[in-house]
Amino acid sequence: MTADEGKGALAKRTLAQLKKLEQNLSARFNQIQAAGLNLDLTRGKPCAEQVSLSNDMDGMLAGNFTTENGQDVRNYGGLSGIPEAKTLGSELMGLPAENVMVGGNSSLSLMFQSMQFALQKGLWDSQSAWQESGQAIKFLCPVPGYDRHFSICESLNIEMISVPLTDTGPDMDKIESLVKADPLIKGIWCVPKFSNPTGCTYSNDTVERIANLPDLAGANFLVMWDNAYSVHSVFENESLANIFDLATNAGTLQNLLVFASTSKITFAGSGVGFMGADATVLQNFLGHLQYQTIGYDKLNQLRHARFLKDSLVTHMQNHARIIKPKFLAVQEALETGLSEDGIATWTRPMGGYFVSLDVPEGLAEKVVGMAAEAGVILTPAGATYPYGKDPLDSNIRIAPTFPKLEDVESAMDILILCTRLASVQQLILGKS
Amino acid sequence: MTADEGKGALAKRTLAQLKKLEQNLSARFNQIQAAGLNLDLTRGKPCAEQVSLSNDMDGMLAGNFTTENGQDVRNYGGLSGIPEAKTLGSELMGLPAENVMVGGNSSLSLMFQSMQFALQKGLWDSQSAWQESGQAIKFLCPVPGYDRHFSICESLNIEMISVPLTDTGPDMDKIESLVKADPLIKGIWCVPKFSNPTGCTYSNDTVERIANLPDLAGANFLVMWDNAYSVHSVFENESLANIFDLATNAGTLQNLLVFASTSKITFAGSGVGFMGADATVLQNFLGHLQYQTIGYDKLNQLRHARFLKDSLVTHMQNHARIIKPKFLAVQEALETGLSEDGIATWTRPMGGYFVSLDVPEGLAEKVVGMAAEAGVILTPAGATYPYGKDPLDSNIRIAPTFPKLEDVESAMDILILCTRLASVQQLILGKS
Repeated sequence: MTADEGKGALAKRTLAQLKKLEQNLSARFNQIQAAGLNLDLTRGKPCAEQVSLSNDMDGMLAGNFTTENGQDVRNYGGLSGIPEAKTLGSELMGLPAENVMVGGNSSLSLMFQSMQFALQKGLWDSQSAWQESGQAIKFLCPVPGYDRHFSICESLNIEMISVPLTDTGPDMDKIESLVKADPLIKGIWCVPKFSNPTGCTYSNDTVERIANLPDLAGANFLVMWDNAYSVHSVFENESLANIFDLATNAGTLQNLLVFASTSKITFAGSGVGFMGADATVLQNFLGHLQYQTIGYDKLNQLRHARFLKDSLVTHMQNHARIIKPKFLAVQEALETGLSEDGIATWTRPMGGYFVSLDVPEGLAEKVVGMAAEAGVILTPAGATYPYGKDPLDSNIRIAPTFPKLEDVESAMDILILCTRLASVQQLILGKS
Repeated sequence: MTADEGKGALAKRTLAQLKKLEQNLSARFNQIQAAGLNLDLTRGKPCAEQVSLSNDMDGMLAGNFTTENGQDVRNYGGLSGIPEAKTLGSELMGLPAENVMVGGNSSLSLMFQSMQFALQKGLWDSQSAWQESGQAIKFLCPVPGYDRHFSICESLNIEMISVPLTDTGPDMDKIESLVKADPLIKGIWCVPKFSNPTGCTYSNDTVERIANLPDLAGANFLVMWDNAYSVHSVFENESLANIFDLATNAGTLQNLLVFASTSKITFAGSGVGFMGADATVLQNFLGHLQYQTIGYDKLNQLRHARFLKDSLVTHMQNHARIIKPKFLAVQEALETGLSEDGIATWTRPMGGYFVSLDVPEGLAEKVVGMAAEAGVILTPAGATYPYGKDPLDSNIRIAPTFPKLEDVESAMDILILCTRLASVQQLILGKS
């Protein structure tokens, strides 16, 4: 995961050498600032070329609005989704179609609703609502992680407990001891493949231990399995153990919710979200959901099912072809710019949407701020941690897919310059 | 609203006459039952011919995915909606585009979220959450009304108070005295034009009094103005006073939420929902909403905006042309079949999706049950009342748009037969 080849190289320099270097870097920084750039590495957004891969989806129904079971998608009905879209969800999530519901354009909404139902209504029975205990409940958050998972907890006043994300997934020793000790811990957020932001994929052992977690935990434990990047290889695929099968074997299927989305397959924000679960839990979810909506957009479900049928693999290869040069540019820039100094570590994901960079402790916010001054907008430092607070102030998320290749290169140059400059200044302060 | 021409005619008959009639009606009922029909007047669904009016919307983007302000709708961004869709919402709701947000495929979801935010989060400020008082809050429900409004209250444990819906809208004298007396009444549901299910349109005086209601009520009162049928004339248009302007004048704009949807304009369940509100309230709503979703389907927003631009009026005239014969068939059947007996009253809406029939007290559930036995499925008796309970057991909602004309005619024949048979049986019991 990390690149430590030149570790300490910068730290070993004399104060005079550092001051000289600081002058050079500052001069370059001032030049760039004057140039008034405007580059954005903020969010995991596909680029225009990527979304163009799906342009033909608009209009592809071509007057045929009938599902394989004879339903007219232009009319009301069918809260759980149309059959062919369930099949698509089943492929994406690796579980039977009868365990799938098809949502609207946002898997995040399905996650929010799941958490809200579990808290206020009970996902299992009316007695199972987390708030029934009257005590503040808690949730495990592997860090660094996805800010929007954390903000769901924040919005619902669920206390978040950070646990480290390693190269093989969350630190399971720590997690197991935490849930054994505290039955108020009601679940865990997981992005198991090409994780946001480190890009790691959980090992088989980790997945198996997560599948068994509900047996160690208090009642009504919930594994929130956001498999957002299941088919999003960039360099090569990494196999992920099938948690649905493992949870079935472990007898913990009722404690598992799996999510997927086509937002980063077809159109970002106009795709289709999916949830997979035990059949009874799914029915309970729909029972609560029916108060909020008559049903989701079945035209869009049908478009997606037809568009991706038999073409998903090729389609994702086309995505990879477009974004691979950008990921390579990020790696090359980090390698060239930072490995000798030994001041930072970063991930080398095989897929997904992000690269995670750790700068010296106490400098992430400063580096992000400096980059902004120089015209490069990054995800706010701390965003990958609960409450937006990285305790080490070290982690920076790099999202290279959206900008043009040359902009990724320019932005990386600036990010590296800022990282080096901030590090040198920190070392000078320490040595003065 | 009512047809009382032959009032009492059936009631004036002798027991022998009634028994003779009961025999005839029973014989016909048994014949029909044996025929094993399967007709559905359940829900307000457009028919296939209606949704076909919008078939060209699929594919109409024709490779142009850019909004008038230069946004690529195929990517993330823009929680409040694209400009041209706000313009469409502005036309439908009669308020400025800057007071509009564009939602997903379900205005019902926007209503649910509004109610949930008002209850749990505060629509105005964090102190304004209804649940902050610790007391059970209440909501006014004009009856008969829309079952899905009532079930939102039920789901959120908000107590419902029924108030009568007259030909000119809700009984305002009663409402004003209720809200003055009880500050725990926090709002009212309204379907102000071609109301569900009576089809009445609120009078100017009623709208003005509703706009002023927040001044009489306790803090944080909410007018839920579901203008679902604003452009849905069938026979002729009825003008509705502009509550946005009236509330602005009354200084109560912060207490008003307006809703609209294209579900019954384009595709039912694949349309676009809208909410209109005071700009600050809208911002507060979006502030809560951002935890649940990154944004709504902007491709569908753009399709709708382009499809309906300059063609909304013609499009709605085409809808009217298709469903007018069905509404006429309902009226003719009721007139021919029931006016002489004087046992029922019904509405004669100029637009919307429903006709409301009141059978003799205590008979609605029985009539609906008998119709089901004879192969005609109607909305469950009581559905138009809070908790699914019509205290008089009298109201039946007729939804004639979805079935074919000949099926509407057959279903009405059966509904009328059941109404007459049940009424005769009730009279016989009373006279025996």
